[in-house]
Amino acid sequence: MNKLDCQSASDIIIFGAAGDLSRRKLLPALYQLELSGLLHQDSRIIGVARSDFDNNSFVELAVKNLKTFISETLDEQVLAKFVARLVYQKLDFSSTDGFKALAKTLAQGNDTRVYYFSTPPAVYGAICDGLDAAKLITANDRVVMEKPIGHCLESSKVINDQVSRFFNESQIYRIDHYLGKETVLNLLVLRFANSLFTSNWDHNCIDHVQITIAESVGIEGRWGFYDDAGQMRDMMQNHLLQILSLVAMEPPADLSADSIRDEKLKVLKALRPINRSNVKEKTVRGQYADGFLKGHAVPGYLQEEGANENSKTETFVAIKAEIDNWRWAGVPFYLRTGKRMAQKHSEIAIHFKEQPHNIFSDSYTELPANKLTIRLQPDEGMELQVMNKIPGIASQMNIQENKLDLSFSKAYADTRVVDAYERLMLEVLNGNQSLFVRRDEVEQAWHWVDSIIEAWQTSNDKPKPYAAGSWGPVSSISLIARDDRQWDE
Amino acid sequence: MNKLDCQSASDIIIFGAAGDLSRRKLLPALYQLELSGLLHQDSRIIGVARSDFDNNSFVELAVKNLKTFISETLDEQVLAKFVARLVYQKLDFSSTDGFKALAKTLAQGNDTRVYYFSTPPAVYGAICDGLDAAKLITANDRVVMEKPIGHCLESSKVINDQVSRFFNESQIYRIDHYLGKETVLNLLVLRFANSLFTSNWDHNCIDHVQITIAESVGIEGRWGFYDDAGQMRDMMQNHLLQILSLVAMEPPADLSADSIRDEKLKVLKALRPINRSNVKEKTVRGQYADGFLKGHAVPGYLQEEGANENSKTETFVAIKAEIDNWRWAGVPFYLRTGKRMAQKHSEIAIHFKEQPHNIFSDSYTELPANKLTIRLQPDEGMELQVMNKIPGIASQMNIQENKLDLSFSKAYADTRVVDAYERLMLEVLNGNQSLFVRRDEVEQAWHWVDSIIEAWQTSNDKPKPYAAGSWGPVSSISLIARDDRQWDE
Repeated sequence: MNKLDCQSASDIIIFGAAGDLSRRKLLPALYQLELSGLLHQDSRIIGVARSDFDNNSFVELAVKNLKTFISETLDEQVLAKFVARLVYQKLDFSSTDGFKALAKTLAQGNDTRVYYFSTPPAVYGAICDGLDAAKLITANDRVVMEKPIGHCLESSKVINDQVSRFFNESQIYRIDHYLGKETVLNLLVLRFANSLFTSNWDHNCIDHVQITIAESVGIEGRWGFYDDAGQMRDMMQNHLLQILSLVAMEPPADLSADSIRDEKLKVLKALRPINRSNVKEKTVRGQYADGFLKGHAVPGYLQEEGANENSKTETFVAIKAEIDNWRWAGVPFYLRTGKRMAQKHSEIAIHFKEQPHNIFSDSYTELPANKLTIRLQPDEGMELQVMNKIPGIASQMNIQENKLDLSFSKAYADTRVVDAYERLMLEVLNGNQSLFVRRDEVEQAWHWVDSIIEAWQTSNDKPKPYAAGSWGPVSSISLIARDDRQWDE
Repeated sequence: MNKLDCQSASDIIIFGAAGDLSRRKLLPALYQLELSGLLHQDSRIIGVARSDFDNNSFVELAVKNLKTFISETLDEQVLAKFVARLVYQKLDFSSTDGFKALAKTLAQGNDTRVYYFSTPPAVYGAICDGLDAAKLITANDRVVMEKPIGHCLESSKVINDQVSRFFNESQIYRIDHYLGKETVLNLLVLRFANSLFTSNWDHNCIDHVQITIAESVGIEGRWGFYDDAGQMRDMMQNHLLQILSLVAMEPPADLSADSIRDEKLKVLKALRPINRSNVKEKTVRGQYADGFLKGHAVPGYLQEEGANENSKTETFVAIKAEIDNWRWAGVPFYLRTGKRMAQKHSEIAIHFKEQPHNIFSDSYTELPANKLTIRLQPDEGMELQVMNKIPGIASQMNIQENKLDLSFSKAYADTRVVDAYERLMLEVLNGNQSLFVRRDEVEQAWHWVDSIIEAWQTSNDKPKPYAAGSWGPVSSISLIARDDRQWDE
């Protein structure tokens, strides 16, 4: 089915339209959908913010940002069509006047409205109240929210409650942009369309799993904002746990949103709790010190501009997660994520078990195990490590690891890599929730994460320092080395 | 261990030294071993034939052929060392004088002698008698024989008996040069060093196996010789059944010659008999008619020079082989081999089972199964077919087959591809029998093949004609299509 066939004309209302996310991601994503002919001809894009724009200056801002954040040259005709959809509405979230004006703008518009909350979660409630007062919420409407929602289970409940007073769960699209990445989506296909993997995907055949999201950037001038959250809330609670649940979930009955989300939730529920009793054994917190990145000296976290030098906020987390269910008993999932790491590098590595018996022990004492690596960035793709005989006669059975490689950018050289936001925006317009996070998932993830944060706070330990440009604190190597394993390099 | 350490100084006596195999394969293989430093410094190469050469003219012949059949430029120093090993001995297999002269030559030589019978099997007996009469056989000596040995089980027994009167089985090296190919050797590593494959290698996970050895050449001017044998004896009885037994065998206890050969023999014993009752259902014979190969008209088998136009000899065979054991119950092995096929192309394809359930049926009604292809020639390597999501957003879950590819010539670009004879010759010199075929294997293979040939002869049918340059008779397509499968293209 053509993706446009299930799309009705919509008004897309972006709250925080002048903000960073909107300029870098949302407007470019919508332009790309226009270019691909995937926007309904009557759909409009209504930018909402506190700033003093009018339609013209908003269009100017949009065009300037499209030119900055889209690497290809813009198509003039497509651009003209796109900017014709743009409308600006100045609005202060706390004032009812602004919402009345918005109501006027929307009155002439489409029946389906997509409210995109590209603002801090703290104002979600105010926006909902304003929309409701102006009678701008119907059962047709959708709301898009960015993760992380809240700061802990309790605060996430508060925010979700504020929104759910006005919107049903079936109207709410919680974004985790990792769910829009090609290789993450491909996880479902890899797992459930390949009998070779399906029949090996459990504790009988898999030794352990590693999930790494490493960033080379630091806190990018947002010290205060980041310090309130830390890497655990900013990356682990959402992205890593979402990936973990896609890797570990049971086969869903079908591809419908709730079938998939039911299975993901089951995984999150099966995560073995980490608390004061075992937090030292199962987790490592780190905080980057000064160091070198690609030859340039960079300051440590506590020396960044605006830093409070007593901060105990972690910029690195490593966790040995265990899933207490039938499929994964005894198979640890090692998770790690950090800022100012040696390079930007995200991947999932499925380490299969070693052979129970090695008939090649004369030439190869320790036979490496098979490994399936799914690269999330920078070069999306996958590779399978297999053992082969080294060609040549000098020794008959010398064995070597080889990689069966599939790089998406090479295999699909003619296909532009679709940005996650582009895909997710399209799914919102089409009313498909399967790539969005359900409330119970968010809350289950917070439940698990809160217990770890609470245990850290109780211990009163500081995060371990690690040199910027390294792969994290030494303790994170010990975490996995204790199990006689090691992080992939 | 360095391969040279287990090699003692040997006299390599090539019977039929002026013949095709010696000139094309054996002398070049020995030169390559010299180049790699894998010939014992005191080893000699004694060419034996009926022709009137002396040492000098034999050296001339050898050098001329090395230049012809080795693509790289010869190394002058290595060549000098190599030709210094060469000795020629004129000998008529039926005359005792010749063997006496040979004894004289060998008297000054090395304790270990390798007798390479590069002659028609019909004279093996005479050679053995001559060697024995001249007291040239000791327990130290080895004998190398080319397959196919004999024309049927009975004649192979006669030949093997003639040789085994003088040599123990542990001294006899029966060559099947497919066992010296990199990718065939790699089968053991693939199967037993990769848990991903080991755990999937049975009737639970594998649907069927295809083994193809397709040649584009015709009978190359040897019509009478070929017509006596046919493709069944020339290719199926040896190469295809050897490959089949390596693909299907149980894990050997170790890599010793007899552990591997015990397991291969078990497979051959488990082959379900094909006889008059089922030969039409399980086999297809073909004979090439005239046709086109790469745009050139080529004659049919019965129009080749020297042809008997009533010949019923097959130039193509396809067989549905079944292995009646626990591992392979219900998993057919489709074998095919032919001359004058569309291209030179040999491969093993392991077709895994389809997924029992397809959750992607909306976008992909028939989910292709995983497939592991091992390419034997022309480009040795392997590839694994997996399903992936097609990148892009126009449709969320469109799936495509991708190939995870490993080409040996690319992965090991710096490594010269070792010819099978080079490896096999080295193994003979080192006294390792694991890449050679044991007598009971040969006889078990003949036993199975004889029953098929007998059934064909009884039926009195002619082979099905197929156009030269095609993939064989239509019936061979039906053979597999009846099972709702098809040959790989």
